[in-house]
Amino acid sequence: MRLSRYFLPILRENPKEAEIVSHRLMLRAGMIRQEAAGIYAWLPLGFRVLQKVEQIVREEMDRAGAIELLMPTLQLADLWRETGRYDAYGPEMLRIKDRHERELLYGPTNEDMITEIFRAYVRSYRDLPKILYHIQWKFRDEQRPRFGVMRGREFLMKDAYSFDLDEEGARLSYNKMFVAYLRIYKRMGLTAIPMRAETGPIGGDLSHEFIILADTGESAVFCNKDVLDLPIPDEHTDYDGDLSPIIKQWTSLYAATEDVHDAARFESETPPEKRIERRGIEVGQVFYFGEKYSKPMRSLITGPDGSEKPFQGGSYGVGVSRLVGAIIEASHDEAGIIWPEAVAPFTVGLANLKVGDAATDAACAEIYERLEALGVDVLYDDTDDRPGGKFAKLDLIGLPYQIIVGPKGLAEGKIEMKTRATGARENLSIAAVIERFTT
Amino acid sequence: MRLSRYFLPILRENPKEAEIVSHRLMLRAGMIRQEAAGIYAWLPLGFRVLQKVEQIVREEMDRAGAIELLMPTLQLADLWRETGRYDAYGPEMLRIKDRHERELLYGPTNEDMITEIFRAYVRSYRDLPKILYHIQWKFRDEQRPRFGVMRGREFLMKDAYSFDLDEEGARLSYNKMFVAYLRIYKRMGLTAIPMRAETGPIGGDLSHEFIILADTGESAVFCNKDVLDLPIPDEHTDYDGDLSPIIKQWTSLYAATEDVHDAARFESETPPEKRIERRGIEVGQVFYFGEKYSKPMRSLITGPDGSEKPFQGGSYGVGVSRLVGAIIEASHDEAGIIWPEAVAPFTVGLANLKVGDAATDAACAEIYERLEALGVDVLYDDTDDRPGGKFAKLDLIGLPYQIIVGPKGLAEGKIEMKTRATGARENLSIAAVIERFTT
Repeated sequence: MRLSRYFLPILRENPKEAEIVSHRLMLRAGMIRQEAAGIYAWLPLGFRVLQKVEQIVREEMDRAGAIELLMPTLQLADLWRETGRYDAYGPEMLRIKDRHERELLYGPTNEDMITEIFRAYVRSYRDLPKILYHIQWKFRDEQRPRFGVMRGREFLMKDAYSFDLDEEGARLSYNKMFVAYLRIYKRMGLTAIPMRAETGPIGGDLSHEFIILADTGESAVFCNKDVLDLPIPDEHTDYDGDLSPIIKQWTSLYAATEDVHDAARFESETPPEKRIERRGIEVGQVFYFGEKYSKPMRSLITGPDGSEKPFQGGSYGVGVSRLVGAIIEASHDEAGIIWPEAVAPFTVGLANLKVGDAATDAACAEIYERLEALGVDVLYDDTDDRPGGKFAKLDLIGLPYQIIVGPKGLAEGKIEMKTRATGARENLSIAAVIERFTT
Repeated sequence: MRLSRYFLPILRENPKEAEIVSHRLMLRAGMIRQEAAGIYAWLPLGFRVLQKVEQIVREEMDRAGAIELLMPTLQLADLWRETGRYDAYGPEMLRIKDRHERELLYGPTNEDMITEIFRAYVRSYRDLPKILYHIQWKFRDEQRPRFGVMRGREFLMKDAYSFDLDEEGARLSYNKMFVAYLRIYKRMGLTAIPMRAETGPIGGDLSHEFIILADTGESAVFCNKDVLDLPIPDEHTDYDGDLSPIIKQWTSLYAATEDVHDAARFESETPPEKRIERRGIEVGQVFYFGEKYSKPMRSLITGPDGSEKPFQGGSYGVGVSRLVGAIIEASHDEAGIIWPEAVAPFTVGLANLKVGDAATDAACAEIYERLEALGVDVLYDDTDDRPGGKFAKLDLIGLPYQIIVGPKGLAEGKIEMKTRATGARENLSIAAVIERFTT
């Protein structure tokens, strides 16, 4: 993409309303624009990151055997009355009346609706187990939206739902999602720790929040330091196999959010030098809630013995839009964002230091075309901005690699390549740079 | 995908509420489920088609130089008051109040919001031209939603917006979108005719609707038969080049919707044997509206001469979710849907006629694995449904190719391949079938 044709509205000033670094950097880097309190437009650069995060989540859900569908954003109030959640949910639910005065709501989550769908079609144990998921915009009418996309009102969430005949089966589904989550965050360059957690308005008996340690986190978290070094299951993990050793490994070390924290147990299980007490950002949560929705909604499954009983359910959320902010919280410096390669909006930023100089233009055009032909996403700064402005812009938007081309270097047959994460700079020939991106 | 693991709730009965064939087939094939009047969940099979349609639209927008972003579904009422559209829009706009009694609405379109975004960042002619687009769910509170996704309330739309300094530039942007639209529909296997049309609530001076001829269409349309045979610009079209010959070719033959139809002109310009008077389904519309939004919202551009004036705008919509229904209206038979390959949810349906028979299972497993390794999407019916049920199901869901494997054929080293569109059947070796899908 040529920057002269792109839409990248960089802000020079630090926006006053931004209290945390990810919000500030997303505004400055032209990734988002606030359209109402807690409601954002994703500008082109931000949208590219959102898509990459979404795609990683999708791939790992599919790998774990979950099936994607898409439920609508608006739901009937009557559906939520079946489970008693319509009245229970409180002012965070956005309630709507249509032109015929029918009561709707903007879905904050989809347990009720997916149960309605499942109930309509599935009645036999032979069709189980199933895990269904969607990635859809949701709305939670926060009293005080803040921190940009970290605590917005309209937000993109992946929510999966599992359907099993019995508790044993439900545990297997829970374990699949648990493992998929470990992989999702790892692929985004994040260290997310599964921690025992409250079940809140979703309900149920068992829950883990996936937490990123960060000073700007919304809650206190407690864990054993060794949990940070546990191995992440690789892409060949057999989701139909026995995942319990992985789960056991991850859940045997102490890790809990403040809501369920047990100080005495923490201290007895964790040597002092291993104790971590920090703030954490929640980037996902998994729940096992059994019959909480299937029983009131009478979604009954006939078992092998011919008897009917409500399915055993679980739900599994990943905050897709929130993750974009969380990744920045975990990966930035004074100069700007440092994108992990897997979620970077472009892999390479190419800076032409003397637009209009024939040799420089030709070298840049060659690099741009050859990298694009290799499938490398390049943002080519072909504007007449001064070099200092181009450097600052590239550091701010945080693309993993910067390729800097100017007449001086070219006279010696060299261009400069800078790795954003380390700051390392190398002078290389064009051929050597291309070689770096040839797999 | 193994059908035993998939979620494909086929309906045996024709749903009574479905008045048109696409609605009936989408319900029967387990593609959608109604969650409220005009509000649908996209079940896995339907969602796959929706994604393919969306991706074709995205690729052609990108090819034409448009830049993708994503605006939120909810908008501030005050934004629409700036252009006077809040009061003008009428009961089809879903108006919402949040917990603080702030007035919001569920966006039916985004001219106002994109102008607000553009106005905030762009003030110089040097940043023009620009075409920005997004693909987002929208809501139109239809008095009487019907025809399934063809006239739903919550619907997925691609809407693009162009920004130019003057009318001449705006025409160039209009032409780019016009050509991109021709390519979009063609890639989906549709013959869509651009017809002169009313501008309606979007406003403006110039508009074309892209129309598919179908008896179930919502309005009468009139055109010269020769327009059906005009060539579609290929993928090497230079969008920075002169597109006016293409536009001229497409607009010089008579083609108009009933709202702007001029019977006298139609008859004078079109020989009797060339006159088509049919019903049409609108699958997209392009508008040039000049200063309609930029002037009241004061989105001013400084030109090369230093003077400020409102930008010249246009907007360009494609009904993404509606297209799924429209494609079925255009491509089905008595037995079910006939998907054009580019939008098919899977390319191949593989029917195992004797699950449990070792040789048949092994042959199916081999075909399934080899095709998947080639990147061919296969839906493998490994259920214990009887053969007749499997044939009917495959015809109903309309995958382009059916591969039918049973013990009898295998004894002779043959499997059957059926092409859904033609009904042609061939007996082939496994190797020959694989060869067909090897590019």
